[in-house]
Amino acid sequence: MPNDSEKSQSYERDMAYVPDRITREHGKSQDGFAGHDLEVATWPVEPGRYRIVAARACPWANRAIIVRRLLGLEGVISMGLAAPVHDERSWTFALDPGGTDPVLGYERLEQAYLARFPDYAKGITVPTIVDVPSGQIVTNDFPAITHDLFFEWRDHHHDGAPDLWPDDCREEMETVMEQVFRHVNDGVYQCGFAGSQDAYAEAYRQLFATLDQLEERLTGQRYLMGRTITEADVRLFTTLVRFDAVYHGHFKCNRNKLTEMPALWGYARDLFQTPGFGDTVDFEQIKRHYYVVHEDLNPGGIVPEGPDLAGWTTPHGRERL
Amino acid sequence: MPNDSEKSQSYERDMAYVPDRITREHGKSQDGFAGHDLEVATWPVEPGRYRIVAARACPWANRAIIVRRLLGLEGVISMGLAAPVHDERSWTFALDPGGTDPVLGYERLEQAYLARFPDYAKGITVPTIVDVPSGQIVTNDFPAITHDLFFEWRDHHHDGAPDLWPDDCREEMETVMEQVFRHVNDGVYQCGFAGSQDAYAEAYRQLFATLDQLEERLTGQRYLMGRTITEADVRLFTTLVRFDAVYHGHFKCNRNKLTEMPALWGYARDLFQTPGFGDTVDFEQIKRHYYVVHEDLNPGGIVPEGPDLAGWTTPHGRERL
Repeated sequence: MPNDSEKSQSYERDMAYVPDRITREHGKSQDGFAGHDLEVATWPVEPGRYRIVAARACPWANRAIIVRRLLGLEGVISMGLAAPVHDERSWTFALDPGGTDPVLGYERLEQAYLARFPDYAKGITVPTIVDVPSGQIVTNDFPAITHDLFFEWRDHHHDGAPDLWPDDCREEMETVMEQVFRHVNDGVYQCGFAGSQDAYAEAYRQLFATLDQLEERLTGQRYLMGRTITEADVRLFTTLVRFDAVYHGHFKCNRNKLTEMPALWGYARDLFQTPGFGDTVDFEQIKRHYYVVHEDLNPGGIVPEGPDLAGWTTPHGRERL
Repeated sequence: MPNDSEKSQSYERDMAYVPDRITREHGKSQDGFAGHDLEVATWPVEPGRYRIVAARACPWANRAIIVRRLLGLEGVISMGLAAPVHDERSWTFALDPGGTDPVLGYERLEQAYLARFPDYAKGITVPTIVDVPSGQIVTNDFPAITHDLFFEWRDHHHDGAPDLWPDDCREEMETVMEQVFRHVNDGVYQCGFAGSQDAYAEAYRQLFATLDQLEERLTGQRYLMGRTITEADVRLFTTLVRFDAVYHGHFKCNRNKLTEMPALWGYARDLFQTPGFGDTVDFEQIKRHYYVVHEDLNPGGIVPEGPDLAGWTTPHGRERL
C-alpha cells in the first residue's frame, strides 16, 4: 500500500474536461445504460456542423479517428489534424498549409477554447469537437465523444457499421474498459510520469498484471467481448499500437515488448490489419510526439530509430478463433 | 559521410589512459603480434602485489573480472569492487563496510590516481590496477589489462586455462575485435550520447549492421573464432549482457532486443551459463548505474523494473555447433 508521500508522487490525469454532449434529443442520451437524462449542456446532432480536431500522435484522439471511420461518419463530421509536436501552448496546425486549419482558420487549437472561454486555463487536449459556425469548443471529453458518435449519430452511420456497444454484454464491457483505462491506457502514463521509484513500480506491476489477464482472455477469443469488434477493442488498440514504439522504452514499461505476448500481439495485428485501425496509425508522428514533447523524460530530444515495425503486417491467424 | 558539424555532435570516448603495463620482462611484451618492445613504463609481474579495482556495473571492467576468473588469477591479483552509482568525483567503495576498500583503505578510486598524479585531471575509470604497497594507480588501459593478464601472467594461470588469444587466428581476431569495439562496445554509447539526431542515426545504423554480421557469423559456429572461447567473446559478451537491460531503452538501441536475434541470443546465453561469465553479472547494479548516473538522459533517476531476465538461464542448444 502506498503511503501518503508515495501517493503524492503518482501521476494523476486531469479529467476536468469541457463536458458538453452532442445528442439526438435535447438533454437526453440515447443510451439508457447510465440513465437517459443528462446533467450537462447538449448540442444538437447536425451533419456538417462540427469538426473533430484530433492528432495522429495521441492515443486518446486516435480512438475518435478510428470510431469515426468504423461508423462511416467522415462525410458528416469533418476532421482536422494537429501536428505531432507542440509547445507549452499545446497543439498547433503546423501540418496544414500555412500552419492554419483550413476549416477553422486557426493556427492553434487553443483558439477554439478561448473563443468560448476567454480565460480558459486548463489543458488544451485532443480530441476536441469544435462548432464550426462559432469556432467554439463543444467538448473535449474523450470517452463521451466516441460513445456519442455511436449512440447519438446512429441515423448517419453507414450501412453495416459495427455494433460497438452491444447490449448483451454491456455490464462486462464497462468493467473491462475500466480496467483497461486505469491500468493500461492511463497505466503507461503512470509508469512514465511517476515521481518516485515506488509509484513507478506500483504502476508497472498493475500494468503487466492487467496485460497478463488480457493475454489470457484473448488466448481463447478473437476480440475482448468475443466474436465482434467493440469500443473496448478500440480503446485497448490505441495503447497497444504505441507500446513497443514508445511506452516500452520512453515510459519504462519494459517487462517485455508487446511482440512477446503472443495473444495480445496477434490481437493487435488483427486489429491493425482491419480497415479503420492500422490506416489511422502514423508511427513517425507517434514517436516524434512523445520523445520531443516530454523534455523532462528525454532532454536531448533524440527520437529512436527503432523498433522494426515490419511485424505489424504479418499474418496473425486469429480468424480461426 | 558526416559533415563537420555532425561530426562534432558525435560522442567520442576519451582514450587517454594511464598506459603502463605489468610485464614478465622489463620493457618487453610476451606477445610478439605487434612487436615485443614496449614504449611505455612497465611494472613487474608479482603475485599479491596488485589489486584490480572493477565494478560489476561497467562493461569495460566486466572484461577484467571475467578474464581474471577464466585464467584462475584470483589468488594472485586481488579485486576490489566499486559501487554502481557514483557522483561527479566518480567511483566510490560505498558497497564495502565503512565505505572503504579493505585493502587500499580508500573511499574513492580517485585516491589511487591522486597518490601518483596529484594534479590528475582526466577520467577516473574502471578497471584500474593499483600497486598495493604504494597505493598508486599502475594502469587503467582496459584493453591492455586483459591482454596482459593472459600473456604476462601465464606462469600463474591455473591448469586448463583457456587459450584466449589463439595464435592461428590472431589477425582475424584483431579485425573482429576492432569491429566489435567500434560499432558495438562503443557503438551503444555513441547511440546514447549522440548530440544530434543524425549522429545517433548513424551510430544506430552501424551498430545494427554489425550485429547483423555477427548474427550471421554465429549462426554457423559456436564462438566468434570457432570452437573455443577467446578474448573476442569476452569483449562481445559484456555488451550483449547489458543490451536489453540498458542499451535497448536507455541508449535507444531499439531496432530489436537481443532476444530477437536467435544466434546472438543463444550465443550470449551459452556464455552466460559458462562459469566465469554469468556469475560476474549483476543486473541490478548494471541498471542502477546507467539509469542513475546519466542524469542528462534520465533526469528522474527512475530505474526500470524490466526486462524479465528469466530467459538467460534457458537452454541454448549451441553445444551441437
